[in-house]
Amino acid sequence: MTSEKNVYLCILAGGSGTRLWPLSRQSSPKQVLTLAGQRSMIQGTIDRVLPLIPLEHILILTDPSRVELITAHLPELPRGNILVEPSARGTAPALGLAAARLRSRLSGDAVMLSLHADHLVSRPEVFLKALRAAIKTARSGRLVTIGVQPSSPETGYGYIERGALLEDELLPVYELKEFKEKPDLATAERFVASGLYDWNTGYFCWMLDTILAAFAQHLPETASLLASIVEAEARSASPSEVLTLWEAIPRNTIDEGIMERVQGAAVVSCDLGWSDIGSWASLYEVLAKDEAGNVSTGGGEHLAIDSHNCLVYSRDRLVATIGLEGMIVVDTGDAVLVMPSERAQQVSDLVKLLKAQQRERFL
Amino acid sequence: MTSEKNVYLCILAGGSGTRLWPLSRQSSPKQVLTLAGQRSMIQGTIDRVLPLIPLEHILILTDPSRVELITAHLPELPRGNILVEPSARGTAPALGLAAARLRSRLSGDAVMLSLHADHLVSRPEVFLKALRAAIKTARSGRLVTIGVQPSSPETGYGYIERGALLEDELLPVYELKEFKEKPDLATAERFVASGLYDWNTGYFCWMLDTILAAFAQHLPETASLLASIVEAEARSASPSEVLTLWEAIPRNTIDEGIMERVQGAAVVSCDLGWSDIGSWASLYEVLAKDEAGNVSTGGGEHLAIDSHNCLVYSRDRLVATIGLEGMIVVDTGDAVLVMPSERAQQVSDLVKLLKAQQRERFL
Repeated sequence: MTSEKNVYLCILAGGSGTRLWPLSRQSSPKQVLTLAGQRSMIQGTIDRVLPLIPLEHILILTDPSRVELITAHLPELPRGNILVEPSARGTAPALGLAAARLRSRLSGDAVMLSLHADHLVSRPEVFLKALRAAIKTARSGRLVTIGVQPSSPETGYGYIERGALLEDELLPVYELKEFKEKPDLATAERFVASGLYDWNTGYFCWMLDTILAAFAQHLPETASLLASIVEAEARSASPSEVLTLWEAIPRNTIDEGIMERVQGAAVVSCDLGWSDIGSWASLYEVLAKDEAGNVSTGGGEHLAIDSHNCLVYSRDRLVATIGLEGMIVVDTGDAVLVMPSERAQQVSDLVKLLKAQQRERFL
Repeated sequence: MTSEKNVYLCILAGGSGTRLWPLSRQSSPKQVLTLAGQRSMIQGTIDRVLPLIPLEHILILTDPSRVELITAHLPELPRGNILVEPSARGTAPALGLAAARLRSRLSGDAVMLSLHADHLVSRPEVFLKALRAAIKTARSGRLVTIGVQPSSPETGYGYIERGALLEDELLPVYELKEFKEKPDLATAERFVASGLYDWNTGYFCWMLDTILAAFAQHLPETASLLASIVEAEARSASPSEVLTLWEAIPRNTIDEGIMERVQGAAVVSCDLGWSDIGSWASLYEVLAKDEAGNVSTGGGEHLAIDSHNCLVYSRDRLVATIGLEGMIVVDTGDAVLVMPSERAQQVSDLVKLLKAQQRERFL
């Protein structure tokens, strides 16, 4: 496979993945964790695209508190490739700023791809095909997203309703009909049964001039402020001036602010073996199980008597279980978490509790 | 309370308490663990009797592998007060040897009391009363045991059937009718409902000449070998000569070999708030619970969301639980154990598994 010319990748690396506590912490957010295989989530994300996009064209978008961590974590990445959002204002301002900054040094037909730093893809060859299809479609002037054919009625993901088939050379590409918020189970089951919906990955692809024109049309105030920021950065304005402009931008997501409003957006539909690993339960889903349905990961050891469908994470300690069904046990040097897997979403409540108690040591 | 004259206490400290793994290990058997309060089990046992029996009259019976540990653990105990059984041959030879050794330096009317090193007593004042009643009854020439009025139909304990009331000065003392093996639940319920049964503590009290006469009558071969051992020890015979005599003694328990065969044995019946803490589930039973029915012990911290009736043991780590009911979570520096409390007996299977795997580090 030859690398794509004039394509730039922005990896969004702003999240923290609190539902993977006690493994995810402020000092080790989800994107730098090694949850499956040998590489961290963000290293894995970079590894996957390197056959297509050279490292110099890979940019990391993150917030000020993460710059040091990401820099240390990715020593091979040119320092200038880490772009800092002054503060979190949603994906529309973040991707708009990245596009505007790229446009200040690249031609308008350069292609920008955006991915998340903390997702798992178990079929990397299909993933590269999807990126190539997305790039090709983007070069035709469309805003493109990548949808994943759902393998189950997952209620933790948003969905995309597909429209007419546009082409089917590398992979099927459809008109993007509508974004759907995370559904309830009945709705998710209907989506999956219909065959008309994909999971929303939050991956996008467009030419710089296409996305900037869409901002100018649908979020003109944002577009204007983004232009002012790039102009201010060009004359090395003070960080506080940049911050003031940035904070004036209305919060918005790229889905709502742009993708749902434009005509002719497209979705590449594929089967990536994809997961956002949004919780311990979803990590369990993607990892290989033993004959009892147990997953033992992290490097430690699980000694099980009559235990089934459990996820045990430990680094260097022995975790022994007797008579457990569908439980999650996580051991990190200073903390242990135990819960049934159906409670995995509530880990964020635990983290909120620790925050409320100002237990910095565990955050 | 004044101390009792001419009374000697033997504390049996031979067990390991494998069902309290991963806390109990070969290097830290149950008797040296601090499971409740501030003192280890054996220290607590000594503390409880000190108002009645001076430290110099307290002997610890243990096996060769434990001598060093017990010596280090009880620095205030005179070194000569640790008596070594050459190997485990059941409670009959162990208590018989202790009695024969004591008789070689004491008069026959000296009273010997025997307790276990690893039991919990939450009503120490009743316990002292029970010992005084037992000593008094022993001085009348009876073999005496202490029974605990059952608070539940426990199937993990043996039972004692009481006969006629003999006296009721300090506490009621009955004729001992029969020992009952650990019963099934229906039998245990019948025992408790009848009001005629006590839990068997394995605590005994007798004058030296009474118990030695009982050995001579009911286990004459054992009595003869015990006499030979004491004679051999008196002339500083080689350890191998003593061991040969010891190993020739038939294995037996004091219950079966002596107590069930003698006429006129007595049982002091009392309510000690007693537990043998035979498992994590029985430790849960005896410890104070919070409003959700949870017990947090060991010095670490339990952060609970929607969790009830759980026991969490950790030393210095945070254990977080979500949505747990009746679970036991034990964290010791190198290992974590998770199980429903009704599986607590199976911890011994886990230890067997570790032994079979020769995992010395965890034994």
